[in-house]
Amino acid sequence: MRFLSRFLSDGVSEQLFSLGGLPGVLWTREGAVGTRPLILMGHGGGQHKKAPDIERRARHFVCEGDFAVVAVDVPGHGDRPTDDVLDRIATENRARVDAGEDLAPLVAGFQALVARRTVPEWRAVLDAVQRLDHVGAGPVGYWGVSLGCGLGVPFVAAEPRVRAAVLGLGGLLVDGTASRITVPVDFRLQWDDERVPRADGLALFDALASADKTLHAGPGRHADLPELEPADSLRFFARHLR
Amino acid sequence: MRFLSRFLSDGVSEQLFSLGGLPGVLWTREGAVGTRPLILMGHGGGQHKKAPDIERRARHFVCEGDFAVVAVDVPGHGDRPTDDVLDRIATENRARVDAGEDLAPLVAGFQALVARRTVPEWRAVLDAVQRLDHVGAGPVGYWGVSLGCGLGVPFVAAEPRVRAAVLGLGGLLVDGTASRITVPVDFRLQWDDERVPRADGLALFDALASADKTLHAGPGRHADLPELEPADSLRFFARHLR
Repeated sequence: MRFLSRFLSDGVSEQLFSLGGLPGVLWTREGAVGTRPLILMGHGGGQHKKAPDIERRARHFVCEGDFAVVAVDVPGHGDRPTDDVLDRIATENRARVDAGEDLAPLVAGFQALVARRTVPEWRAVLDAVQRLDHVGAGPVGYWGVSLGCGLGVPFVAAEPRVRAAVLGLGGLLVDGTASRITVPVDFRLQWDDERVPRADGLALFDALASADKTLHAGPGRHADLPELEPADSLRFFARHLR
Repeated sequence: MRFLSRFLSDGVSEQLFSLGGLPGVLWTREGAVGTRPLILMGHGGGQHKKAPDIERRARHFVCEGDFAVVAVDVPGHGDRPTDDVLDRIATENRARVDAGEDLAPLVAGFQALVARRTVPEWRAVLDAVQRLDHVGAGPVGYWGVSLGCGLGVPFVAAEPRVRAAVLGLGGLLVDGTASRITVPVDFRLQWDDERVPRADGLALFDALASADKTLHAGPGRHADLPELEPADSLRFFARHLR
């Protein structure tokens, strides 16, 4: 793990890093020492590790909850090279949607393909970040909606260090991993989601095997999560990781 | 309005009253002076104005939010006389369910009938309670689940003083009043509700015309609202009534 830069603002330290070529960012409280809970955040499709939505939430988790937060670019996103295979499939999918095919199953298939890479990448990120003095091997949470949900579900199912997850804006996956999730889940659904059919989101929530899971839904389109969401997520993580 | 008793405990004043024969209870902070937001609570079927679930939440709203809280017995419940008409219909409904009829539409029809009485009764309660010095004409909230939802929906639709409502554990009503509700609603659904089919609860949430409405759902049967619900409701009321 190689640190590329460090930037301090508003009491938050932001460290850009590269882990074997994987570009990432770690946020912690300025001057943080010792072990603390860590939240791994998965960004949305077409976004990147420092997308405004991600960074705003990360800073909220650091400032209000003293969590460490880490995010990395998904293959084909942010500072990663373009990926010919994924690009080709994305282009094909757009053409199939234009030709009248349903978007949702194509998205689910695409996300399952990407998750085969991100699950081991994100596990390696936990390994590396938890070796740092100012993060340590504390409890881990996951936050991800939309693409971050499609990739987050197989990650949370596979990674026993994750003890609680905020997921949402996603439909049932093709890989059956949802039913292997047993940790507490806070699930977000937008009632008027134009990308994920309402029934698909409800089916994903239904499939989670967690005894402690909560569905939160309200009016609004795919990208319009309510303003209160970060504060709700913070309370959720504080309850389960502290 | 005639006060029958006053009981102080843990900093909360509990006043039993009769309003033209309608038995009620008013909770306020001990020593409260002046206008404050008021929450009217509707109890569940077979319960009464001082059922443990109601009283526990009422005391929470008073102690943590300095709200006034009022509850009255629904016809045929608590300290009200038995009601031959309602009793007969309830008995008939039980027989029809035993004979294989669906419970949900029978419940909806029954609740619509009861609501024709409770809506004017509850409006009269607001009139009377808001004339008291230690309550006053502040903003009003409504809290009610199960029967308290079936009766609460037509009440909230009819009563402009109500500015925010917690509802849930209920299905779509037969009277179409849900689509006349426009105030913020916090809606509670139990994912494994054995009394209200999941689709009926989702349909009720869907029918609410409120721009600000949130569905909260989690595993559990009809009566098993999560422990965090009162704290969530308090935050919701504080946001909209303060």
